[in-house]
Amino acid sequence: MSRPLILVTNDDGHFAPGIRALVEVASELGEVIIIAPDSPQSGMGHAITIHNPLRINRVQSFGDIQAWECNGTPVDCVKLAKHVVLKDRKVDLCVSGINHGSNASINIIYSGTLSAAMEASLEGINSIGFSLLDYSFDADFEPSKPFVRRIMQFVLDNGLSQTRLLNVNIPKLASGEIKGMKVCRQANARWIEEFVESTDPRGQKYYWLTGQFINEDLGSDTDVHALDNGYISIVPSGHDLTSYGAMAGLSDLND
Amino acid sequence: MSRPLILVTNDDGHFAPGIRALVEVASELGEVIIIAPDSPQSGMGHAITIHNPLRINRVQSFGDIQAWECNGTPVDCVKLAKHVVLKDRKVDLCVSGINHGSNASINIIYSGTLSAAMEASLEGINSIGFSLLDYSFDADFEPSKPFVRRIMQFVLDNGLSQTRLLNVNIPKLASGEIKGMKVCRQANARWIEEFVESTDPRGQKYYWLTGQFINEDLGSDTDVHALDNGYISIVPSGHDLTSYGAMAGLSDLND
Repeated sequence: MSRPLILVTNDDGHFAPGIRALVEVASELGEVIIIAPDSPQSGMGHAITIHNPLRINRVQSFGDIQAWECNGTPVDCVKLAKHVVLKDRKVDLCVSGINHGSNASINIIYSGTLSAAMEASLEGINSIGFSLLDYSFDADFEPSKPFVRRIMQFVLDNGLSQTRLLNVNIPKLASGEIKGMKVCRQANARWIEEFVESTDPRGQKYYWLTGQFINEDLGSDTDVHALDNGYISIVPSGHDLTSYGAMAGLSDLND
Repeated sequence: MSRPLILVTNDDGHFAPGIRALVEVASELGEVIIIAPDSPQSGMGHAITIHNPLRINRVQSFGDIQAWECNGTPVDCVKLAKHVVLKDRKVDLCVSGINHGSNASINIIYSGTLSAAMEASLEGINSIGFSLLDYSFDADFEPSKPFVRRIMQFVLDNGLSQTRLLNVNIPKLASGEIKGMKVCRQANARWIEEFVESTDPRGQKYYWLTGQFINEDLGSDTDVHALDNGYISIVPSGHDLTSYGAMAGLSDLND
């Protein structure tokens, strides 16, 4: 029986330790093809490149494993992987990450990591975005690996039903301290933004985005709650943004 | 009574006729402040700028109306408007567009126009993204204006309940031909991508994204159906991506 084909991508680029951890696990489970941005693309959300040409290049940064870099966004990477690199060969699973930093709750909409996985899901590919709650380059991905492996194996064995995308976040804990995994809903949390104002060497003002993550969602069934309590959160996610509950209140707008 | 404060933005930049049509309508209904990207930002999705400084400048392109340009993404524009330009002064309504081209169905997740409006909704501001199904620079926005005005007035008068974001798309029809408006759900349609492959003057291959929009959703309650039948579509939209129906099938992953 042929091994499953696993597409690996991320938004932090090739040299991020997080993608190396993910490739290590994926290689145990299937044939791996990597395509990742040639520069960090955090915060790119679901951006696509339409005003500029895209380029891809083979890179040797993963030894024997076929790896490509792309000058576009994470979503561009997935589109190019599917249609140019793999020429529409069937992909069994797409995994994105492991991101250095949280993509729980509202972060999913800003995240290049999750947008890449979502793009694959739109192409009909079962997909998982993995993120570790540690922004540092030197984050320790060892404790994550057994869980990443278990979730990937589950999806390869069972497929997914009524979703094609899992948003997985992993708390920053040592191996013995992770309590387990929980299937959750996305917490209704948000960022309170601030801008650091400063002046450049030519005397021009500039602003740099910063902010604070605030969770006002008190449910015990959310991803943020699971993570706060030492669990890995798994949120099955989609792309239908319709607020069905709001439709009745808008009936005066119907002609 | 003071006039409502209306924040106007878009993703096509200041010089797009679409934003001028929107400003014209908004100015009849309230005090208008404009902040728009300094270059076209179509397809930027919910991208934010975190690796670079952001700049804003006053511009005179709208006569007496206070207008700013920003070097960031549409989402950056909204964040800067709220926290730097308006210094957290209460905004009564944010409108984004009128986009040159459709943002119906799955286009909402790629759209800078809608992501700007969604960002405002995350800040607690009632928001509307407007798009006309005509990509051309010379698109005729006259037939749209009475409907744009009616929807804005509705939200100013009644507020919104169970949503803070409306995704409004307008068919490319002459004034008398638009049949009316319909509150709808987002169609489950998608893009079938293709890449045009070519070679640059230095002999390097490049790819340019293109594609075809395919609607396989046969429901008569979708935005695509409404537009195909000559109606303006209004989809109340949110940011909870959880696929609730998929949770039960993942119970084996719970510890």
